[in-house]
Amino acid sequence: MNTLFKNATVLFPDGTTKPADIAVQGNKIAQVGSVAPDWQADRIIDASEKLAVPGFVNAHTHASMTLLRSYADDMNLMDWLQNKIWPIEAKMKKDDIYWGAMLAAVEMIKSGTTTFADMYGDMEKVAEAAIQSGLRAVLSRGMIGSAPNGETAFEENKQLFRDYNNAADGRITVMFGPHAPYTCPPAFLRRVAAAAQEMHAEVHIHLAETKGEVENCLKDYGKTPIELMEDTGILDCGVLGAHCVYLSDHDIQLMAKYHVRAAHNPGSNMKLASGIAPVTKLLQAGVCVGLGTDGASSNNNLDMLEEIRLAALLHKVDTLDPLAIPAKEAVRMGTEYGAQAVGIKNTGRIEAGQLADITLFAMKGAAWCPRYDLTSLLVYSADSSSIDTVMVDGKILMENRNLLTLDEERILFEANRCAMRISK
Amino acid sequence: MNTLFKNATVLFPDGTTKPADIAVQGNKIAQVGSVAPDWQADRIIDASEKLAVPGFVNAHTHASMTLLRSYADDMNLMDWLQNKIWPIEAKMKKDDIYWGAMLAAVEMIKSGTTTFADMYGDMEKVAEAAIQSGLRAVLSRGMIGSAPNGETAFEENKQLFRDYNNAADGRITVMFGPHAPYTCPPAFLRRVAAAAQEMHAEVHIHLAETKGEVENCLKDYGKTPIELMEDTGILDCGVLGAHCVYLSDHDIQLMAKYHVRAAHNPGSNMKLASGIAPVTKLLQAGVCVGLGTDGASSNNNLDMLEEIRLAALLHKVDTLDPLAIPAKEAVRMGTEYGAQAVGIKNTGRIEAGQLADITLFAMKGAAWCPRYDLTSLLVYSADSSSIDTVMVDGKILMENRNLLTLDEERILFEANRCAMRISK
Repeated sequence: MNTLFKNATVLFPDGTTKPADIAVQGNKIAQVGSVAPDWQADRIIDASEKLAVPGFVNAHTHASMTLLRSYADDMNLMDWLQNKIWPIEAKMKKDDIYWGAMLAAVEMIKSGTTTFADMYGDMEKVAEAAIQSGLRAVLSRGMIGSAPNGETAFEENKQLFRDYNNAADGRITVMFGPHAPYTCPPAFLRRVAAAAQEMHAEVHIHLAETKGEVENCLKDYGKTPIELMEDTGILDCGVLGAHCVYLSDHDIQLMAKYHVRAAHNPGSNMKLASGIAPVTKLLQAGVCVGLGTDGASSNNNLDMLEEIRLAALLHKVDTLDPLAIPAKEAVRMGTEYGAQAVGIKNTGRIEAGQLADITLFAMKGAAWCPRYDLTSLLVYSADSSSIDTVMVDGKILMENRNLLTLDEERILFEANRCAMRISK
Repeated sequence: MNTLFKNATVLFPDGTTKPADIAVQGNKIAQVGSVAPDWQADRIIDASEKLAVPGFVNAHTHASMTLLRSYADDMNLMDWLQNKIWPIEAKMKKDDIYWGAMLAAVEMIKSGTTTFADMYGDMEKVAEAAIQSGLRAVLSRGMIGSAPNGETAFEENKQLFRDYNNAADGRITVMFGPHAPYTCPPAFLRRVAAAAQEMHAEVHIHLAETKGEVENCLKDYGKTPIELMEDTGILDCGVLGAHCVYLSDHDIQLMAKYHVRAAHNPGSNMKLASGIAPVTKLLQAGVCVGLGTDGASSNNNLDMLEEIRLAALLHKVDTLDPLAIPAKEAVRMGTEYGAQAVGIKNTGRIEAGQLADITLFAMKGAAWCPRYDLTSLLVYSADSSSIDTVMVDGKILMENRNLLTLDEERILFEANRCAMRISK
C-alpha cells in the first residue's frame, strides 16, 4: 500500500516547516519534497492546510493505568500508593489490563502518539492492544524484585521477549522492566542484566524519581541509583531510564558514558511533586532525553503535546532562561529523541528511509492564527484536538478524527465497565 | 429570555459535582437543583452528559496582542521587546487592535472564558469586540507614565471610563491601567490614584513580574514595587495586580491588608522565564489569586483551562507538596477567585443570584473516562475542545461549538490580513 500526502506542510528534522509532499511506500517514507506526478500511489490524501509532524513517542507510560484516571489525586505519594493505587491494582485482572490498554490506545492515537514504551503486568494484554490498534510499542514486564512474585515476573518478562519481540511486523519490541533500584535488590538486577544481555534485550527502569529514593540508595549502598546501576551491570544493557529527576554531575557523566536515554515526564513529576529533572544539563552532556506521560493516574492524560509544551515551559522557568528548550527542541524531544530513547532507530523524523509514523494537524481555528511560526504554534498554542490523521508503519489509524482500527465507543463502554467493577 | 439547562452535572462552589438543573432568568441564575416542571423556560437545553462550570475568568490579558501570536518566541525579554514586539506594535492601527481583539474573543469563547480583564491601547476597539461578542470585560488603558504619550493615555483612560464603565448592560467595567511601577514614575501614579478614587475606578497594574524590576525599584526608591504602590496611594484604589512573582513577606502582608488581588499567569511566567509566584503563600495569607493568560504573544494562547492545570501542577513541584493547589482550588482560581480579582462581585459560582456566566463541557471521549472524579478530569485530563456551550449574562454565545455572536471565518480572515500587513 503506497500513500501520497499531497501539499502538506512538513515539520523537518531541523525544526523548520516547509510545503512538501510525503510519499509512503509500504511502511516507510520513500520521498519528502515534490513527488513526481507519476509516482505510484494507491491512495492520495490532500494534506493542504495540514502540518505533518513525526508521530509522537510516549517514552514512558503504564497504559493499563488509564483505567485509574481520576481515581485518586492530590495526595501524598505513599498515602496515594498504599491506600488507593495498590489496593485497586490488586483487583485488576487480565480483562481490566486489556481494556485499560485499549482505552489508552484510543487516547494515544487521538492525540497523535504513534509509539509508546510501556511497563506493567500481564503485558501480553498490552501487546494485544498494540497489535489491534496498530500502534508501535516497546513493552516491558514491570518486575518488583523484592516482591513475592519477583521470580514469576522475571520469567514472564523473558517469555514476553520470546513471544513478542519483533512481533506485529516489527512494531513491537520487548525490554526488561526491573521496576526501580529501590524495589529490585542488586542481586536481582545483576540477574536481569545478565538475562538482558544474553537475549540482546534492553532495560526500561525508573531511576532517581524522588529525593527520598536517592537518599535511601546512598544510605543503603553508598551509591546513587545511577552508580548502583553501573555496579549491577544494568548500564551495560542499553537503558531507558524513566524520570531521572535527582542526578549528580557524576550521574550525568555516567549516563552519557553508557548512553543511558532518559524519559522525562514533566506532567507527572509536577503533579506528584517529585521535582524538576535537570533536562538542560542532560542535553548539554549529550544524553538523549525523550518525553513520557507516565501513567494516566499521575498525569492524568496521555497527551504528548501537553508534555512537549510542559517541557518547553518548565525548564525555562526552572533555569530562568527563556532560551532553554526552545519550541523546536521540545518537539524533537517528543519525536526524534523519544524514538532514540525507546530504542527505535529509524522513526521520529519525516525523511526518506524512516518508518512512516506521521501525525497530521489540521491548522484550523484561532489557535493556528496568525501563522508567523508553525513550530511555535504547535508547541505553545495548539492542542491535540486539531490532530486529524495518524499513520503508523504506513497504515492509517485515524482519519478526520475517526479511528479506523479501534471501536472507540465499545472501548469506552468496556473501560467504564471495568472501572466500575474494580472501584466497587 | 429564560433558559433551563436540564439534567446537567454541576460543579458546585465547594468543588464537588452533582446532577442538577440550572434555571436562568434574564441574566441571572435563578435556581440550581431540581427545577419544577412548570418553571417558565423560553428554551430548554438538554445538558445531560454535560459538566456545567462557572465561565472562566481571564484575569489578565492583552487581547489585541493575539495578533502577535507566534511572531517572536524563545528570546530574551529585552531582545524580544526591543527588536520584535515594540517595532511591530508601533505598526498596529485601530483596525489591527480591533481584529486582534475579535480573534481573542473567538478563542476565549471557544475555550470557555466568559470574562476577561484587558490592558492595552485604543481600548474602545476592545470594548467594541466585547460588545459584539457578548463577553464580559474589565478594560483598562495601558499607560506608560514615562512615555511621551503618557498624558494622552491618562486622558484616554478617563474617557474610556466615562464612555464604557457599566456599558453593555453592565457587562463592561473600566479600570485605570498604569502599566507598571518601572514605567510610571511615582508622581504619575499618585495622579492616577487620585483620579481613580475620584471616579470610583479600580486599578489594573503589572507588579513585581521580574527579579530585575524589584531590584531596580529597591535601588531607585528603597522600596519594593508593592511598598511603592502603598506610598503612591495606588493600593487605596482597589488593585488587580498582574504577575506578583517576586514578593517579600512584607509585600504579601501589604497585599492582604489592602485587599490587592493577584492575577497569576503561570504560562507566561514560565515561557518568559520570569519566575514562580508564591501562590500558596498568597492564598494562605488570604490574598485573592485569579488566573490569567497574559497576552498571546507570551503564552501563546488564551486557554484558561491550561492555566488552571498549570497552576495546579507548577505549585506542587515548586513547593514539593503534592497537596498544593488541589484540583478544586485550581478551578476556583480560574472562576470564582478570578471574578473577585477583576472586581465582579456576583459571578464565578453556579448558584442562585449569580450572573449567568456558564460553560458546559461535553464529557465525551477518552479524556473523560473513567469518571471517578469529574473535577480531577476537568483540571488534569480534559482540554478545552470538549467545551460545547458558553453562556454569558444569560445569553448563549456558543452552542455545539458554533459561535452565535461572531463570524469566526471572517474574523480569522481579517486577523490574518492584519497580521500580514503589520509583519511586512
